[in-house]
Amino acid sequence: MALIVQKYGGTSVGDADKIKNVARRIAARREKGDELVVVVSAMGHTTDELIALAHQINPHPEDRELDVLLSTGETVSSTLMAMALHEMGLPAISLSGAQAGIGTESRFGRARILEVDPQRIHKELGEGKIVIVAGFQGITEEMDIATLGRGGSDTTAVALAAALKAERCEIYTDVDGVYTTDPRIEPKARKLVEINYEEMLELATWGARVMHNRAVELGAVYNVPILVASSFRDVPGTLIHRGEEMVEQRNKVSGIAYDTDVAKVTVRGVPDRPGIAATVFGPLSDAGISVDTIVQNASVERIADVTFTVTRKDLERALKLIEPIAHQISAGDVITDDHLAKVSIVGAGMTSAPGYASRMFKTLFDSGINIEIISTSEIRITCIIDESRVADAVRALHKAFELEEAE
Amino acid sequence: MALIVQKYGGTSVGDADKIKNVARRIAARREKGDELVVVVSAMGHTTDELIALAHQINPHPEDRELDVLLSTGETVSSTLMAMALHEMGLPAISLSGAQAGIGTESRFGRARILEVDPQRIHKELGEGKIVIVAGFQGITEEMDIATLGRGGSDTTAVALAAALKAERCEIYTDVDGVYTTDPRIEPKARKLVEINYEEMLELATWGARVMHNRAVELGAVYNVPILVASSFRDVPGTLIHRGEEMVEQRNKVSGIAYDTDVAKVTVRGVPDRPGIAATVFGPLSDAGISVDTIVQNASVERIADVTFTVTRKDLERALKLIEPIAHQISAGDVITDDHLAKVSIVGAGMTSAPGYASRMFKTLFDSGINIEIISTSEIRITCIIDESRVADAVRALHKAFELEEAE
Repeated sequence: MALIVQKYGGTSVGDADKIKNVARRIAARREKGDELVVVVSAMGHTTDELIALAHQINPHPEDRELDVLLSTGETVSSTLMAMALHEMGLPAISLSGAQAGIGTESRFGRARILEVDPQRIHKELGEGKIVIVAGFQGITEEMDIATLGRGGSDTTAVALAAALKAERCEIYTDVDGVYTTDPRIEPKARKLVEINYEEMLELATWGARVMHNRAVELGAVYNVPILVASSFRDVPGTLIHRGEEMVEQRNKVSGIAYDTDVAKVTVRGVPDRPGIAATVFGPLSDAGISVDTIVQNASVERIADVTFTVTRKDLERALKLIEPIAHQISAGDVITDDHLAKVSIVGAGMTSAPGYASRMFKTLFDSGINIEIISTSEIRITCIIDESRVADAVRALHKAFELEEAE
Repeated sequence: MALIVQKYGGTSVGDADKIKNVARRIAARREKGDELVVVVSAMGHTTDELIALAHQINPHPEDRELDVLLSTGETVSSTLMAMALHEMGLPAISLSGAQAGIGTESRFGRARILEVDPQRIHKELGEGKIVIVAGFQGITEEMDIATLGRGGSDTTAVALAAALKAERCEIYTDVDGVYTTDPRIEPKARKLVEINYEEMLELATWGARVMHNRAVELGAVYNVPILVASSFRDVPGTLIHRGEEMVEQRNKVSGIAYDTDVAKVTVRGVPDRPGIAATVFGPLSDAGISVDTIVQNASVERIADVTFTVTRKDLERALKLIEPIAHQISAGDVITDDHLAKVSIVGAGMTSAPGYASRMFKTLFDSGINIEIISTSEIRITCIIDESRVADAVRALHKAFELEEAE
């Protein structure tokens, strides 16, 4: 008998029939003798509808109140799931995040989990019940409800799996696993049987549809094997796990990631002296603007061009901060481009083997795609290119690295 | 500066605009310098919609799960009300029943309040905030959500007023006070300036639209003055209070109550021996069937006809229990009539003054209305009559006791 934590997303519990359908899947799994803790998201578009309702009343609702409001979405689906299991004659109980012992910090709207005290869950499991937990929500020390931010139900599931020392965390969603690239762009994309945490994180720019990054990071820290699979079809999913053995596989590229939400800022003629990076990037960080790729070209006469990327929605705010700074440090123009995209090849152990980067650059060159910026990490090589060529780049790279082949 | 507890019902917070409207009323009251605790019901038909959703999944949802589900309705309106006040620049915070310290027993769906620990409310009031409390819900010792049953938000409000030693509990609703009788039947019905708790309870058979009986009882026990008034119009409401001085007023009849949900059961030829009442009524009580009026006629040769009334929905179940008992105690036929209604005159001190009962009987006789059963209490005289004559009876009695006159 294994203890399994499952999570079903909003699409999977979108209406009464879908909830019943998921209940049947849970029942079938229970038949096999596993102990089950099931985390559920809010039904369908409930969260968006609640936000719209709040905005009718207050365009800028206080985070604390919004969290209380949004948390009702998951509360509703958790009780309905318990009712569906009761209707099938199965013992089940719904628990709120607070009852499940999810303790969070007080940063309403994007609280991190501080601790999990699964006492009540253990009690209910001990009584033979299937435990349904409302995802996305926890409780602060002051006993206020706080939510974990978008995708927070994934985080709830992995955190519970870690605290309960569950054998596995299973994320059931509307896609049936992790693919070598986005199947909407490259129909030959292949579903991966397994992938390690780091590769999953790098793939997440388009894989975010599959699973929330924070949950993958948490899985990595606590070594929780995470299965991503379809909640609608009985087909094998993708197992995200530590998987040391995978490093030695022949083809080290696991997949092609892309991201079209890229804007570039270049500050020209920055004096190259110590502390200048902090002067430029400190205020962005203070303003909560996440800076992605940073490139500084080789300095000629102690003058450099500094280029970095941000998401498009942050571009305007970033500019407002950067322009006075550029003036203050006697730099030149600030120029921007918001029609860019990132395309990356991802694979563990890739940087320890030669030739991947050059094959990537050659592939893009052969397709007539200009590379604006290059950046690399342990397991990823990223090129920033024109937005209009993303699909071409993804398909060319998918082919070049032979990802469409059967394993 | 007085501490006031207000309660706004579901119609009053039915949509975003109505919530904003209530927020404006709260703000105006706050301007006067009062400390405010505001209890809100679920928006409009939310509770019915949630029940319908549950029934789509399970026709007989477990009470514990249903309570968690229904409680979200009040949680939603409490946060929206806080947001509406924030939008007006006022400090406010929403609290769940649990946070407001409403401790209940574990009878899910109809839990009674066991204790109120208003620590958190005091803290928030101390910080100058308007405290919005989700009505209808509390928390059990096991930290499960339990609801107080239909109309429970009234009970929440009065219980909080008692625990906080508030100056007054104000129930804002879609009617503007308590009338001498139902204005839909007698347009000359007059709004009462004040009424005592007991009269209010007796009037509640049609007054139930105005306010929940449990809340009135609680108000009586803790001597909480309760104002019932309109949430839409600025007109004086009705104050429900102890009001000893009212007993001596000239016209002791405060109002005319009626109830059309009456079914009568008569067991003929019941042997008149000790213990027979327990034999007949014990099983009904065990089955949770509430028996209203009981009449046993003068016994002739130790044989009696026993008549009692139940609500129409309980009639079938009552019959199934009574028929075998009638057979067992060698009684005669069991006959029923489900086309009856009750009409009552209600007034404190009425039974200590002569002539009220006879005037009531004469009035009905003069209108050609036959009286089936008579029963009386300290402050009420009730006649059971044919359902088709209820409106006539109410109007005739309202006139006979001069209730339409200005005070």
